[in-house]
Amino acid sequence: MAATGRAVDAFVRDHLTGSSAPDGGLFEAMQYAALGPGKRFRPALVMAGAELFALPHPSALRVAAAIELVHTYSLVHDDLPCMDDDDLRRGRPTTHVKFGEATAVLVGDALLPLAFELLVHPETHSRAEVRIELVRGLAVASGAHGMVVGQMLDLAAEHRVLDLDGITRLQELKTGALITFACESPAVLAEASGGERAALRAFARDLGLAFQITDDILDVEGTAAAVGKGVGKDASAGKATFVSLLGVEAARARADGLMEQAAAHLDCFGARAATLRALGRFVVQRSA
Amino acid sequence: MAATGRAVDAFVRDHLTGSSAPDGGLFEAMQYAALGPGKRFRPALVMAGAELFALPHPSALRVAAAIELVHTYSLVHDDLPCMDDDDLRRGRPTTHVKFGEATAVLVGDALLPLAFELLVHPETHSRAEVRIELVRGLAVASGAHGMVVGQMLDLAAEHRVLDLDGITRLQELKTGALITFACESPAVLAEASGGERAALRAFARDLGLAFQITDDILDVEGTAAAVGKGVGKDASAGKATFVSLLGVEAARARADGLMEQAAAHLDCFGARAATLRALGRFVVQRSA
Repeated sequence: MAATGRAVDAFVRDHLTGSSAPDGGLFEAMQYAALGPGKRFRPALVMAGAELFALPHPSALRVAAAIELVHTYSLVHDDLPCMDDDDLRRGRPTTHVKFGEATAVLVGDALLPLAFELLVHPETHSRAEVRIELVRGLAVASGAHGMVVGQMLDLAAEHRVLDLDGITRLQELKTGALITFACESPAVLAEASGGERAALRAFARDLGLAFQITDDILDVEGTAAAVGKGVGKDASAGKATFVSLLGVEAARARADGLMEQAAAHLDCFGARAATLRALGRFVVQRSA
Repeated sequence: MAATGRAVDAFVRDHLTGSSAPDGGLFEAMQYAALGPGKRFRPALVMAGAELFALPHPSALRVAAAIELVHTYSLVHDDLPCMDDDDLRRGRPTTHVKFGEATAVLVGDALLPLAFELLVHPETHSRAEVRIELVRGLAVASGAHGMVVGQMLDLAAEHRVLDLDGITRLQELKTGALITFACESPAVLAEASGGERAALRAFARDLGLAFQITDDILDVEGTAAAVGKGVGKDASAGKATFVSLLGVEAARARADGLMEQAAAHLDCFGARAATLRALGRFVVQRSA
């Protein structure tokens, strides 16, 4: 994961350089948002999937970077005062705290099209049909039937206590859709069979929920210093989480169960899926 | 233009329907933003260009709708309190006044990927290479080297008075980039020659500036009722505009001159460009 993080960061840095003309500080703020310390979990999923299909590294790296840019943009907007109003992210002041709200809105607005720009480049894949399928997948995952409606439901959850099904659907949209695209995209690049794509989607679905449940546990048990963002926020906002609904012990057991289930979906790939399996273990064992 | 507007609105309405599952009101707010009364100037440019190349209507309509969605998202975000803080748009309360700031941010965030989703559909064009070129063009026009950096420069202009070159560059990015893509996209769909694409880009560049100068004149001379948005805002914010730098008379003369120059770029198309030329005349003669 550390190696993937470095490779993605170097790639993103190369693509976040403005011209010499005045830009009002836009590129500096985009770099701040995109290159802050972070796990680069979604890129790691893409690169592990690339290993599975023996994909060329530069090709997978473009897709990994595109997905990380979309994830970053969503964090920048979610942290805004009118949204979750967070001051701390990845152990540093959030983008709007550092550069102001207007700039933070525009940083997000600029990162999203840049992700699509990365995908359409011929170096992503020689066949335009494959690039089109990636653009479609990212647009759907990040749009009104994916990530954005998930965030909308999350905001609405401050006024309406969700049950377990409600929380599950919310998280499958808010974080799950992009994680699923990260897992499926190597299969798109490899023009893999429908069965293999479905197996990766099923893996991603369980993995995404396990990831979110672990996040909820860290929100209760972690410290801001370790987690790198404010903790205890869901409880103080009166929001239902997997932990508030299940308790810590049962939540942890559910995350573990989901990860076993997730790993089972990879059986069809045999030993080739070792890195993806390891990422799954990381998800439920991490402390930040 | 009215016919184009109705066709685009009907198309957009069909693509802004949520599922029966809860969406926190996202689709209602997206419809409100996207279907408010407006000129649909950019779609009209696309459809006039489609006439030039005798393109199939459904194909051009998808591109027109995609561009209008991006334009709409930019208005929703630009109107936010942390940006231009506007209460009135297209004669109605702005999206954040009607639905709250968080929803307005998310409406914009959802409209942008939807635009790309529309473009990648096979009905846009049978060849994936052409769709890729459209995605690339829209991503560049709407991104950090186009519309977004233009808005960033516009915000910075509250603290720094721009000269004519500065204002021109700002507007070429903020509104010009998307107008240029609207004019060029029919040539992309038609797989037209580089010369024809360049002629349309040159037309668009002059047209976009003439459009913006006319906007500045209406901001001084128009009433909110006629224009459908707050007027006199640039002057009260102390921002330089074409009118503050040139005066109304010289600004009008420049807009007229630019439109003559724009029309001349269409000479290579002969009578086929009649509708595009008429749109040019509309730009400088409109009162709203």
